[in-house]
Amino acid sequence: MPKVDLEALEQTNTTGYPPPFDEPVAGRWQRKVAEAAGLTQLGARHVVLEPGAWSSQRHWHEGEDEFLVMLEGEAVLVEDDGRTLLKAGDMAAWPKGVRNGHHLVNESAAPCRFVAFGGGKNSGGAYSDIDMQFDADGRYLHKDGTPY
Amino acid sequence: MPKVDLEALEQTNTTGYPPPFDEPVAGRWQRKVAEAAGLTQLGARHVVLEPGAWSSQRHWHEGEDEFLVMLEGEAVLVEDDGRTLLKAGDMAAWPKGVRNGHHLVNESAAPCRFVAFGGGKNSGGAYSDIDMQFDADGRYLHKDGTPY
Repeated sequence: MPKVDLEALEQTNTTGYPPPFDEPVAGRWQRKVAEAAGLTQLGARHVVLEPGAWSSQRHWHEGEDEFLVMLEGEAVLVEDDGRTLLKAGDMAAWPKGVRNGHHLVNESAAPCRFVAFGGGKNSGGAYSDIDMQFDADGRYLHKDGTPY
Repeated sequence: MPKVDLEALEQTNTTGYPPPFDEPVAGRWQRKVAEAAGLTQLGARHVVLEPGAWSSQRHWHEGEDEFLVMLEGEAVLVEDDGRTLLKAGDMAAWPKGVRNGHHLVNESAAPCRFVAFGGGKNSGGAYSDIDMQFDADGRYLHKDGTPY
């Protein structure tokens, strides 16, 4: 039965970010909804952001497209060119290779919920505001290539 | 600015289905939200189903994964093994190659809205309830291979 049973899926706030970059995402609770359903051709994470939490460090992907659907609550989308409030029902899309770092920040007093989709092949990317990039194997490196 | 401006996108109820298979989807209004945003690694359609409308003929894909997020209203998911009501916030996923035909039927008195995602490469598929299949070029054929 292809309806996703969200409550049955493990929810985790773990991250591979090295300290102190892990702190802003401690209130990000994720479930891998596409993987749990056996999908292999696209990724989808159901995410709950507690008040104050970030969806990620501000980043972009070299080889992967991203698409986000807000389900409940609101968060501020932060990019190079400013801030945009996203509310329930809003959508946002980021084509691969566009080096305009983005993330969501829950500046409200209530949790927000969204689904984040990814398609394509990871070939690395970088973080706009900190000395960090990731490679095609998902490893975190300084921008000079030194591993964390 | 990556927020999707839904109202700015063309909405269409066209279909390539041959008659009479086109009739149940006449009340299906679609916008290609991922393509409009420049995405190439995943597909996303924002769909409004009028009361009585179907999302498609009941079908499955050989090579593409599908994922659906209900935004507003409700519809009945129909599959080989029964019916499931999907409401706002519900999600459903269909892995490629699973020959369990599926579609949504809006049996309610109000429009419903959802986003349907696709990933992977079209390599054909078929329709569960009618004498029709589609090939890797998106052409509609009888199940004996004769074109419509």
